Amino acid sequence: MTLLDAIPEIRYRQLADTLAAAIHRGTLLPGSRLPSVRRCAQTHNVSINTVVAAYRQLEDRGLIEARPQSGFYVRATLPALKTASAPSNRIEKPADDVLALIDTVFAAQQNPAFTNLSLACPQTSDFYPGSKLGRMLASQLRRQPNLIGQYALPPGNLRLRQQIARRSMTLGMLLEPGDITLTHGCMEALQLALRATTKPGDCVGLESPTYFYLLPLLASLGLNALEIPTDSQNGLSLDALELLLQEKRLNAVIAMPTVQNPLGCTMPLAAKKRLARLMNDHQVPLIEDGLYAELQFGSALSPAVKAFDRDGWVLFCSSFTKTLAPDFRIGWVAGGRFSEALHKLKAVSSMSESQLLSETLATFLEAGGYDHHLRNLRKRYATQVEEARALIARHFPRGTRATQPAGGFVFWVEFPLAVDAVALFHQLLEEQICLTPGTLYSPSGLRLSCCYPFDARYTQALARVGAKACEMSGLPAGIAQGE
Amino acid sequence: MTLLDAIPEIRYRQLADTLAAAIHRGTLLPGSRLPSVRRCAQTHNVSINTVVAAYRQLEDRGLIEARPQSGFYVRATLPALKTASAPSNRIEKPADDVLALIDTVFAAQQNPAFTNLSLACPQTSDFYPGSKLGRMLASQLRRQPNLIGQYALPPGNLRLRQQIARRSMTLGMLLEPGDITLTHGCMEALQLALRATTKPGDCVGLESPTYFYLLPLLASLGLNALEIPTDSQNGLSLDALELLLQEKRLNAVIAMPTVQNPLGCTMPLAAKKRLARLMNDHQVPLIEDGLYAELQFGSALSPAVKAFDRDGWVLFCSSFTKTLAPDFRIGWVAGGRFSEALHKLKAVSSMSESQLLSETLATFLEAGGYDHHLRNLRKRYATQVEEARALIARHFPRGTRATQPAGGFVFWVEFPLAVDAVALFHQLLEEQICLTPGTLYSPSGLRLSCCYPFDARYTQALARVGAKACEMSGLPAGIAQGE
Repeated sequence: MTLLDAIPEIRYRQLADTLAAAIHRGTLLPGSRLPSVRRCAQTHNVSINTVVAAYRQLEDRGLIEARPQSGFYVRATLPALKTASAPSNRIEKPADDVLALIDTVFAAQQNPAFTNLSLACPQTSDFYPGSKLGRMLASQLRRQPNLIGQYALPPGNLRLRQQIARRSMTLGMLLEPGDITLTHGCMEALQLALRATTKPGDCVGLESPTYFYLLPLLASLGLNALEIPTDSQNGLSLDALELLLQEKRLNAVIAMPTVQNPLGCTMPLAAKKRLARLMNDHQVPLIEDGLYAELQFGSALSPAVKAFDRDGWVLFCSSFTKTLAPDFRIGWVAGGRFSEALHKLKAVSSMSESQLLSETLATFLEAGGYDHHLRNLRKRYATQVEEARALIARHFPRGTRATQPAGGFVFWVEFPLAVDAVALFHQLLEEQICLTPGTLYSPSGLRLSCCYPFDARYTQALARVGAKACEMSGLPAGIAQGE
Repeated sequence: MTLLDAIPEIRYRQLADTLAAAIHRGTLLPGSRLPSVRRCAQTHNVSINTVVAAYRQLEDRGLIEARPQSGFYVRATLPALKTASAPSNRIEKPADDVLALIDTVFAAQQNPAFTNLSLACPQTSDFYPGSKLGRMLASQLRRQPNLIGQYALPPGNLRLRQQIARRSMTLGMLLEPGDITLTHGCMEALQLALRATTKPGDCVGLESPTYFYLLPLLASLGLNALEIPTDSQNGLSLDALELLLQEKRLNAVIAMPTVQNPLGCTMPLAAKKRLARLMNDHQVPLIEDGLYAELQFGSALSPAVKAFDRDGWVLFCSSFTKTLAPDFRIGWVAGGRFSEALHKLKAVSSMSESQLLSETLATFLEAGGYDHHLRNLRKRYATQVEEARALIARHFPRGTRATQPAGGFVFWVEFPLAVDAVALFHQLLEEQICLTPGTLYSPSGLRLSCCYPFDARYTQALARVGAKACEMSGLPAGIAQGE
């Protein structure tokens, strides 16, 4: 009987997964020493044998190496790639489980009885200029009642595309209206961008962790996913990316370099420039998801990677869904060298966006209230993010870590190992509190959304998440370490 | 030097294509004798040698056979299949050409200076209850101003899905709201239905002729197309379909059994029942495009094939785009056994439809004005179709044939061979008249749309098409033969 046989597999697999996630995200850096087996056992409240088994499994996965007389070290040469290069049972298998979990999350999100710490949309009018947009919509209807009877054609309303092109300069981009295709939200922008740049069987590089719908989207298009380690300081690992590009293993890359979902982080400027250069040098398309880029907290906005796009290999996707009018679901993609293909693909996929809604958005953007609205929204979210982090520090179990977002309203929380985030999710569902567990990469991770009005109901729910996590783990509540 | 070398290939290919199209559509029935070489030469104003070369090519394509001492006959055993079974250079090649042509058509359609005999939408408010819908939309905004700030989730607004389920009974269907996914127009309904039922590389059977965007849609999804002969009396050839199903050569079928685009015809009831039975027996999904089904001219509506769906193998797609509010672009699919998959696919493709627009549609449907509106619309289109056919009979070249539509506002016109519909299209573009040439299946075919107000501009443009066609062919204007 071997050591591994003696320990329930679930225990050491869980620990191995958590450590692997830390390595993927760069919390444990290449070349760094892992905690001693004894210390790790104490920290995670498991037996010595469990730690040994977990370390052996990480060694088998190629993530760490044993150095004689010294201990275990994170492998220095691109530790995440070893896993990423053989992702078949790591990436494809969870897609179904995750879809099922997302269904549960969606059902709870749609139930007004639930307190929502999950959905990335405030679901309330006072975060958006709803009444002003409503008046503009009504006025548009009076002026052009026959818009309802019109049949819009791709690439979409010209006035709105002109406004998008004009506004894109705030993120350093110089776009022409002809570069832009209007889409049904950012989700369709990503979907069409993937279809325009890849074919089934191709391999797409993506951040790890990433937006939870990307893996199901890739699976639905017959695309393979290759994870690229992403940390909250530097974003996507460009060294890892460069190696993959050199080895010609990627047909496209999809990433969120500004206000990443779920980490909330933004890539440094130099890294963005290098990313643009890499993609253009290797002539591989980068699908840049800029959904939250206008919600950056700083006064000076970090430019899009698309701003440094030399030869049109960057496709920039965004939407007004998170900033202005969620229900209009009007997004867009600036397709670079793929613009023509995107116009055509939009036509055979869903034809066009509503002229009535597009005209209304264009009128709002022309009228000049958008910047004022964005300033308020950014301030509000910055405050709420800080308040949420303070609540986490107070109520969540000692050892909980949380990212420091550069904008938007989502961030990543990582519990100590003793908390199983999926179990926590299910238990809190019974109390009508809805979370988004970060299942794919860490059994102890959680994406928190703090875009809701900070009323008593929200703060109490957040405190309750902490209390439940403490109860489940036996850990005391305490101060969270910011990453 | 052979006979074929002596004749310009373009001449006999053109004739062969026209005859092949007639065979595909059932105008020349299996087993029937082709006109003698001499008579064919007279009819089409070509040389005897050209006819002989064309007949030989049809023989090579497996569409006709020579019987000694008797002449040429359409092959009795599924004449179209021979062509359909080796469609690679017949189906895939034109997709790009057609896309380019469609671009030209779209550009002209969007230019208000052009007279539009092409777009399948009136582009004018008085065909739709625009002002009533506008008032309902404004009232909805006043009652629920925060709808603009809401984030809608799939499968979409429940009230609207309830109304769709209720109304589907007029087409003989018994649907539950849970069967239905709201989509971005019928185009997205078809796209998602294809993705839910097939994988890249699969083979999809479709009508010939068919909606001009289906081939580019299939190509964009990596699907192969297999044409099934379709005639204006009986629709899709069920004998051909049955053989293909028995040979397991189809992974899905997409068809428009009610008010087909472009023929305008509706399958007989018995054929619809047999179609439903075939698909269920062979467990192959049928994607039923019911876009024009509510625009049938008769007082009793022919039921959907979905009405006879035994085990959920029929997916019914439709939209309010042609009947009520083109600009809202709200469509739907009742997915049968694929309903769950469709809910999920919608989420990762474009998430959801606007709640504001969905609620407004639901309110309109509940208020009961829809049936009244539909009755008026049907009457109006029936009148316009008759007027358009009368103008064609008067102004188009002698020998022109046109289908007799069972509803809607499009029908198929076939010129005598001497008229090249694509050349006609380009020449009339210079006169700012926009047509839809039926390039794929017949160089002499044309889809006409008569949904526009029948004003002097429209009737003059239609007369001008006839005059130009007469001028190009040297044929006199005369009475069209109805099929």
